[in-house]
Amino acid sequence: MAHPLFSAAGHLVAIGGAEDRTSDLEILKNVFALTPEGNREVAVIATASGIPKQVLPEYEAAFSRLGASQVHLLGIRDRREAADADTVRRIEKSGIIFFTGGDQLRLTNVLGGSPVLRAVRKRLQDGAVVAGTSAGAAAMPSTMIYNGAAADALRKGAVNMTSGLGFVDGLIIDSHFLERGRFTRLMEVGASNPEHLGVGLGEDAGVIMHPHGILEAIGPGHVILIDSLDLASSNIADLDMGKPVAVEHMILHALVSGHGFDVEARRYLVPHELSAALAESR
Amino acid sequence: MAHPLFSAAGHLVAIGGAEDRTSDLEILKNVFALTPEGNREVAVIATASGIPKQVLPEYEAAFSRLGASQVHLLGIRDRREAADADTVRRIEKSGIIFFTGGDQLRLTNVLGGSPVLRAVRKRLQDGAVVAGTSAGAAAMPSTMIYNGAAADALRKGAVNMTSGLGFVDGLIIDSHFLERGRFTRLMEVGASNPEHLGVGLGEDAGVIMHPHGILEAIGPGHVILIDSLDLASSNIADLDMGKPVAVEHMILHALVSGHGFDVEARRYLVPHELSAALAESR
Repeated sequence: MAHPLFSAAGHLVAIGGAEDRTSDLEILKNVFALTPEGNREVAVIATASGIPKQVLPEYEAAFSRLGASQVHLLGIRDRREAADADTVRRIEKSGIIFFTGGDQLRLTNVLGGSPVLRAVRKRLQDGAVVAGTSAGAAAMPSTMIYNGAAADALRKGAVNMTSGLGFVDGLIIDSHFLERGRFTRLMEVGASNPEHLGVGLGEDAGVIMHPHGILEAIGPGHVILIDSLDLASSNIADLDMGKPVAVEHMILHALVSGHGFDVEARRYLVPHELSAALAESR
Repeated sequence: MAHPLFSAAGHLVAIGGAEDRTSDLEILKNVFALTPEGNREVAVIATASGIPKQVLPEYEAAFSRLGASQVHLLGIRDRREAADADTVRRIEKSGIIFFTGGDQLRLTNVLGGSPVLRAVRKRLQDGAVVAGTSAGAAAMPSTMIYNGAAADALRKGAVNMTSGLGFVDGLIIDSHFLERGRFTRLMEVGASNPEHLGVGLGEDAGVIMHPHGILEAIGPGHVILIDSLDLASSNIADLDMGKPVAVEHMILHALVSGHGFDVEARRYLVPHELSAALAESR
């Protein structure tokens, strides 16, 4: 009963950014709890970050507090480092691979097609947890947003997209979603191609993508879903670049911790339905 | 075939704020074009504004350029002025009554139940145009939003509401909608009571509310509609104040100039459907 969108054995966790890293670590605790049996090694990849020397020790401290046996701090600044054999070995040993925030275009530009990325994909297939925050979340799907001012969005071409890290299909992930008013970005994306579910992560909110296509919201924030599959009409294909896009009929949901969504069935899951769906998929 | 939501003979025009007042005046031109036959007098009410002496001359210049025979500049700062007989007479003579932006709570606090407000309502019944921008748009319905930081919204109680000016029923209007990321405000409002259609006006965008319940988008910006009527579930009634609100199933539309919406039928109207609906309702 493997799901085409979530065919890996491991868990993906996408976090909206600005998750608590110093007090009660609610979201990171959730990530750590998914670790495969007997493997408490964590690899933190800070490629996206412009300030890796500041960010890496924060995650080292947080994951150590949660009980990590070792935290590998991986800056990976360029394509040479993305092919480094020792770095690949550290990833191959880790039960959790965590991508920091920063710029998702740096992430794909440095890691796209690299031995490091292949190693992460293999770990996910084999049951490890792959988590990422902000840029590290946005980059997870096959296609990602990397730029687009919210105020300009919903004008043809305002949102810039490219191929992502390819950990999951069928979703487009946006972060800092409520805080930066990014609804129009996912609406423009949905008008451009209604097939993929738009997942908008608020800060200090996250979503666990369970292997069988079930999303589970975690953290104190919101996860907004914009489902364009039943889009009735849009003028987007007829417009010149920069012109305002019309949209007829998208469906909007807000998930909070304990609520979920079945991506295949396009079905919202209130807490008891989520529990049942997760029990069934085990 | 009068519509319960739009029972007046005149037109209401709600504008999202920051409309062009100095170059080609696209939206104000649309407002002016709705003037009842033979009456080119305009009353501008700046009660909402903290800077009426700056704002009033701008509208005087704009409406004069468009061909107004007279522009009455009405500051109306307090409840005594809201009962002034000369002010009421100016409103009674005007074919267009225009509310500036500012603070909608000042608008309702000063004008609620006043002779000036009764005169405006009477003019709308008798076929005049009542238009408003920003606060002047938000205050139009029976219930209005007057406060609520977008970043806090969708947490129970984050949005503050009170009775509005009562020009239209069945809608909740929010302004500066895309620019300030206010989707979550209308989602919280829709969860609190799904009956009323959420109308989110972008800057330099507006909506004409035609007498027969047809909305028509105008201007170069977007009008976002959030329709909660088919809300499937929400936890809002069970939550403590400040806790995050879950929402299952709201419908989202984006209108651009020339597109419309039939509020009664909850039907999106592409340009040829809008033209047909407006021709039929004449």
